[in-house]
Parts: sequence; C-alpha cells; structure tokens
Amino acid sequence: MNPDSFRKHAHEFVDWIADYFETIEQYPVKSRVQPGEIKQQIPGHAPKSGEPIEAIFHDFQTIIMPGISHWQHPGWFAYFPANNSPVSVLAEMLTAGLGVQGMIWDTSPAATELEEVVTSWLRDMMGLSPDFTGVIQDTASTATLCALLSAREKTTGFSVNKKGFEQTLRVYTSNQTHSSIEKGVKIAGFGKENLVYIESDENFALKADQLEKAIKADLENGFVPCCVIATLGTTSSMAMDPAKDMAAICKKYGIWLHVDAAFAGTAAIVPELRGFMEGSDLADSFVFNPHKWMLTNFDCSVYYVKDPEVLKQTFSIMPEYLKTAADNQVNNYRDWGIQLGRRFRSLKLWFVIRHYGIEGIQQMVRRHVELARKFASWIQDEPRFEILAPVNLSLVCFRMVKPGLSPEELNELNKKLLEYINQSGEVYLTHTILNGNYCLRLSVGQRNTEKRHVKRVFELCEGF
Amino acid sequence: MNPDSFRKHAHEFVDWIADYFETIEQYPVKSRVQPGEIKQQIPGHAPKSGEPIEAIFHDFQTIIMPGISHWQHPGWFAYFPANNSPVSVLAEMLTAGLGVQGMIWDTSPAATELEEVVTSWLRDMMGLSPDFTGVIQDTASTATLCALLSAREKTTGFSVNKKGFEQTLRVYTSNQTHSSIEKGVKIAGFGKENLVYIESDENFALKADQLEKAIKADLENGFVPCCVIATLGTTSSMAMDPAKDMAAICKKYGIWLHVDAAFAGTAAIVPELRGFMEGSDLADSFVFNPHKWMLTNFDCSVYYVKDPEVLKQTFSIMPEYLKTAADNQVNNYRDWGIQLGRRFRSLKLWFVIRHYGIEGIQQMVRRHVELARKFASWIQDEPRFEILAPVNLSLVCFRMVKPGLSPEELNELNKKLLEYINQSGEVYLTHTILNGNYCLRLSVGQRNTEKRHVKRVFELCEGF
Repeated sequence: MNPDSFRKHAHEFVDWIADYFETIEQYPVKSRVQPGEIKQQIPGHAPKSGEPIEAIFHDFQTIIMPGISHWQHPGWFAYFPANNSPVSVLAEMLTAGLGVQGMIWDTSPAATELEEVVTSWLRDMMGLSPDFTGVIQDTASTATLCALLSAREKTTGFSVNKKGFEQTLRVYTSNQTHSSIEKGVKIAGFGKENLVYIESDENFALKADQLEKAIKADLENGFVPCCVIATLGTTSSMAMDPAKDMAAICKKYGIWLHVDAAFAGTAAIVPELRGFMEGSDLADSFVFNPHKWMLTNFDCSVYYVKDPEVLKQTFSIMPEYLKTAADNQVNNYRDWGIQLGRRFRSLKLWFVIRHYGIEGIQQMVRRHVELARKFASWIQDEPRFEILAPVNLSLVCFRMVKPGLSPEELNELNKKLLEYINQSGEVYLTHTILNGNYCLRLSVGQRNTEKRHVKRVFELCEGF
Repeated sequence: MNPDSFRKHAHEFVDWIADYFETIEQYPVKSRVQPGEIKQQIPGHAPKSGEPIEAIFHDFQTIIMPGISHWQHPGWFAYFPANNSPVSVLAEMLTAGLGVQGMIWDTSPAATELEEVVTSWLRDMMGLSPDFTGVIQDTASTATLCALLSAREKTTGFSVNKKGFEQTLRVYTSNQTHSSIEKGVKIAGFGKENLVYIESDENFALKADQLEKAIKADLENGFVPCCVIATLGTTSSMAMDPAKDMAAICKKYGIWLHVDAAFAGTAAIVPELRGFMEGSDLADSFVFNPHKWMLTNFDCSVYYVKDPEVLKQTFSIMPEYLKTAADNQVNNYRDWGIQLGRRFRSLKLWFVIRHYGIEGIQQMVRRHVELARKFASWIQDEPRFEILAPVNLSLVCFRMVKPGLSPEELNELNKKLLEYINQSGEVYLTHTILNGNYCLRLSVGQRNTEKRHVKRVFELCEGF
C-alpha cells in the first residue's frame, strides 16, 4: 500500500469511526453471538496472495462487528469502565503511525521525557505526595506484580533475585481484594498459602486490627511479613480499605505498603471526593489506571513509587547491546517494569489531560458519581429492591428482594433479573456475590452516559 | 469534542501520518535532542481548563517530533526492527476507536475468536507443528516469563504456586541469551544463581554437550533441572542454538524446552530460510514477535504452547465478578498470561496477514536477507573491515580493522566509526561485543529499506 492508498483508506476509516461514535447506541451493548460463531466465518488458513483493503474492511464490518461488546456504549454498566475519548483515539493514531518502541531513552527521548512529565502531572492532580515518582505500566496486574517484587527484594536485601527463596515471605490483603494479587503472589514465587486474606468488615473494608493480629502471629511462627496491599475501591463493591491505619501498621513492622486504586483513582482528581485516598501518601507504591475511568485508551496504568532505586535494582539488566552514551543522565524505563519493549503511552495521556483539562475530568467524574447516587436513591425508594454495599463513588450493588424466598431462590431470581436486563441490548450490567448474596452491579463510567441510560436500567428492573 | 470535530481533526491527523510516511527520510533517523531538552519545554503542571486540539497538535509537531527516533525510517539498522505498515496502522485506528478490552470472551467474543484463528494461521505459515496452540502476549519478555512459570509449575506439580519454593530449580540457556531470560528468572523467584549459562561455540551457538554436562552436575548436586531456553536468532549476533539437540536432552531428562525466536521467527515463513527452526516442533513452548519483523505495530508477540492446560492452570483465577455463562465453551485469555486486561491485538495481525498475503511477507523477508548478504559481501571484499559472526538472516556484525592496533584501540576505533555513521542522520546502527571485540550491527528489517540505504552505510564506512 503506497502513501496515497493509505491516505484514501485512512480517511474512510476515520469516517467509519466517527459514524460509530454517532451511532453506537444502535448496537446491542453486549455482543449476541454464540461461542464459535465468529471463528467459523473465518478461513482456516492465511491467504497466499494479498487481498485488497476493501475486502478486509468488509469482513471487519460483517464478521467482527457483531462479535464486539461495546465498552464505549453509554449503556455500558458492566465490570468497570474502560472509557476512551475522541482525543485519545487521535493520539493513538499518531502513536500507531510513528511506530515508536520506547524501551530506552535513546530509542525516542520524547517518549521517556513526556512520560516523566505526565506522570508527575497526574500525581499532582490527584493530590498525591511529590515524593512519588511515576512510570506507566500496561495494567494494574503488572503494576501490582512490580510492587510485590520490589517488596520481596527490599525485604530480603535483593537476595531472592540472586539466590531464590530462603525464607517464607508473607503478603496480606483483604478477602475482597482483586484477583491480580493472588496471581502476582503466585508469579513472584511466594506461594498462595503465603497470601494471608484478612477479614473485612460490614462495609467490605479490611479490618486493620485483624491485619496486625495476622502479622504478629506470622512473626511468632517465624514467617517474614513482606507486603501489605490496600485496595481503595474493590472491583466487587468499590469498598475502601483503611489505608491510613494499614500504613501505621506497616510502618511499625517495617512492611511494604502497596495501594491499589486502579479503578477509583480517577476520583481523587475531584477534591470533594478525595477523602478515600487518606493514607495513600504513606504507601511505598500506588497504582491507578487512567485507562479505566479517565478517557484514555486501554492500556495505560500509572504506577507510583517512593524509591525508584528499589524498582530499578529489582529489574535492572544491562546487556551490551542496550548500552548507550546517555545512560547516566536519563531514565531507561526498560528497568522500571517487566517488559523490555514499551509502547509510547504517554502521548495519549498528554492529549487527554490537555484537551479536557483538570476541570473537564472533574466534571465527568462528578456527573458519574451523581448518576450512581441517583440510581441508588431510586433503588432505596423501591421496596422490591435493596442496596447491598455502601455506594462509594460510581458503583451500586443491589438486588431484588421478595418475601418468602430462600437465599438460593433469591440468588436465582437476581440471576434472571440480570439476564432480563442484559437481553434488552440497551444496557449491560454484571454481577458479584456479597456475603453469599448474588447482586447486580451498576458501574457508571462511560463518557457519554446520561441520566436516561441509568433511568433505563431502573425501568427494566421495575418491569421485571 | 463532538463527533464532527473528531471527524475534522482525525482527517487532518490522517494527512499528517500519510505525509510522515512520504517524507520520513527527511528526518534524522536517531533523535538529536539532549537529555532534558524535551521535558524542559513542557509545563510542570496540567492545565486547569481544556485546550484546543490545534494547540496540542502544534506542540506535538514542534516539541515531541524532534525527540522521536524514527523506527520506520528506511535507514533504521539499529537494535532490531519494529516495523509497522500502513495496513497495520489502519487496524490500530479501528482498535483505538472500538476501545475494546478483551479480558474474557464475553467482553468481545470477536477479539478472542479472531486471536484463535490468526495464531493458528501464523503457526501454519511458519511450518510449526499443529500440536501448538497460540496466544498473543505483549512482548517476548512476557511470553518467556510465561514459559518459565509454566515450567516451574509443571516441574513441581503446581506446588510453587501453592506453597512457594521448596527445591532449587535450575534454568539453562546460552551465554549469548537475551536479557529477558535473566529478568524472568528473577521475577519467577528462581534466583539468578540458578540460571546456568552454557558456553557457546565459535558461532555463538550453545554447546549441547556442555548443556548435558551442566544438567548432570546439577542432578548430582541435588538441584532440580526445570527449564532450558534455546534462542533461534540471538539479539547480539543472530546466533542459532541447536534446538534439536537441546530437545533430545530435554526429553531425556524430562525438562521443559522453550524456544525464543522473537526476532528471527518471521523468517520461518520463507521455506528456503526455515532451516534454523529445526527442533522447534519438539519444544514445549515457542515465542516469536510479529511486531519485530512482520509489519505489525508494537506490541504483538505470539506465544505457542503444546499444552494449554498447563498454562491455564499456572495462571487461572476465578473471582465471582468475572464468571460468565460461556466459561465452559470458550477461551478466556485472561488465564493465558500475566495481565487480566487485554488489547484487541489480533485485529492488526489479521489485517497485515490478509493484506500482504503469505507471499507478500515472504518477498519482504527475502529482500531484507538479500540486502544483508550483499552488505556482508561488500564488507568481506574490503580488507579494512571484517565480519565477526556468521551472517544469519538479516544481521551483519562487522568492524573496522587496522594493523598494529591493540584490542582496546580497535574497540575505540569502532566506537568512533559508529558515532561517525550515526551522526550522518541518514542511517542508525547500534553495537554489540563479541568475544571482547566491539562491533557494529547492521540489522535490516524496515519495510522500505532499499539497496541504496544499505549502500549508504557502506559508503559511510569507507569514508571514515
């Protein structure tokens, strides 16, 4: 394809994307295809000769599009948001065109230096301590793994990196924590048995006294406490762990504190919503995902550390073929995470923050939180429904109730309610289980979600 | 930004990208900025109010562009290629517009099923055994970490995942291996001391007899051999380990064999170049990166395994909020790697393979290999220069020689030669050290590289 041909097709694609933005509500939010339906339409072998773009684009529209669940649909209330924005898409276009791989400063100084700047912008926007230094990771799974590894190495004087495990290191987190903690604990070689789940309270927040009790018991048994993970905004119910109390315990026993605010972090940009962040400044590391609720295309997770030297020493490698003249004067981000290769992710973050401004992001978050509260108030006023967890920020956990039903029957009823709602195609919610109770989650966070979309969920609930 | 405004700006951006493709040779390949030069031009704080796209795009052109090293410049001979292509950029535009997060089948069935199809296309294109099942990872660093973790768990009956380390597990690879192996060994908790570097021969390929000797010695000392990594195409000199001999040893001792063909893998698509792959079919896992030499935007690394169950059991997590009705009928790729969240990477791979066809990719690879051989022949015919490693595929390691100089003086001379060449701005090469000798690497792999670009490197060498 020559540049002229690219130009022609790219203009067509732009119009298609702009049309998609305009007409997205005409698609069912959740794809309706059956397992295997997409792949059976695609030939089993690659074509020998090249095909024209027209044919490929045609298949994209007819075969792929029916298999898309539309994360950018204003009726997306499932899981968590992964909202993008027109300006983020523009930046991704440039990123793709440049085709930069920013593994070290030399391979595109702008990628490294822009990352330094925008991560410090974000830190200040959230009101986080200037003692934190940021780096972009792909996902919170990776950032949390970085935290676990840094904690492991700091606790052992970088000895696991050298010799492997010689002690039993322990990690503590609430029983409401994200699955990536368990995954990271396994990857880093701690062993799942050494992930200590701490009981949570009636608000699904970690009980700090139980944390200290567990640490004390471990010390008595000859285990080495290594890392505590506080979640600010659990995936299941947006519960907030008491980070400040946890930080005091970590300080007392010399344990690494990692704060996972992957989902909720964006809300810290709004001063009146920032209360949940209390204690974050006392952490050793902190993660939040602009790709969730901050208008930035997936993937883009920002990881903050107090001591970048620990991070670098945990990951540093120095093969001859990667040495450059600038090594002593610059950040080579290859040593700040798992992967060697790195996309130019700071560009979209820069575009998003500049185009929306701090105020634009605040407005969106306030609107989403207001919509969630409004929905919660409707549910509360309706005796057939109940709220099952504190409504923190943008998430509402609720269910239908019916006198005389057993807990199992209630769970079945709510499964059916969820199916009924999602079959509409207009909105898409997912579920969780809290204290054994199956409940529906309304997670508000898509850029274009309006009151009418939230209202529609309520109407569907009422009509069941 | 409303859809109309997006449409307008996106058309402008498309024209800019098309112009960039047409005029890329007017830029110096390697950025000429000094450390700190970019960041000092960017304000220290995020703007309170939003800014128009025009202002941001202006700054992109004036501040960011001078800090870009142009991986897509036909004079890019540094490190390894990370070539993209117009059709890959088109696909990335759609990916960005859709904003899909494909963590599980339900969150976009097309993302999962297209990944199943294109990874099997690629497997067949390379002539790999149909016993392999593919999954897309971000980078080879991550894929190799997956291999190390799978080997760790298979060797211990999934006991490290559960309890942590109880034995000393050993990993073997050549002393020419990629830095990601050391990094992965540390991350997975083996300890660097348990990464056994095996001597390489005069072609920088692992000595199989030394591998067996090391394994035997370890067994006598009570260590547990766990994983062997064969590199087909080392980063430093494109050396090829004897995968077939290594596979026989692994079979004999029951050790996991991982093959790292991250860079060279694309060449397997060309039948007459496929010889280096011998033994790959006997591996437990295999990785290659379409984002290096196969016209696909970074990141896109394809990881093949013989037994997906081991991979899934290594990584499986099952929180309530991720359970879906389709779980028993589909692949949920969240359990096939480190991260939970996943970009829709199969789309660009599908676009690239279809638009170029198998023949189009073969043509490009043949052209690059031919150019590398041509350059090597010029170097060989010129008594002031010498080749320092076998010219495998697209990489030439060479240096200038001068009678009467000490080894140190020769190294200094070649450092200066590299600086001289790169100062031209027309081409960009990097270096390595082989047997203590500093040498220049010419890595041919950019999509538009022609004979004249390679010729220019030779002219610069001659003019030094």
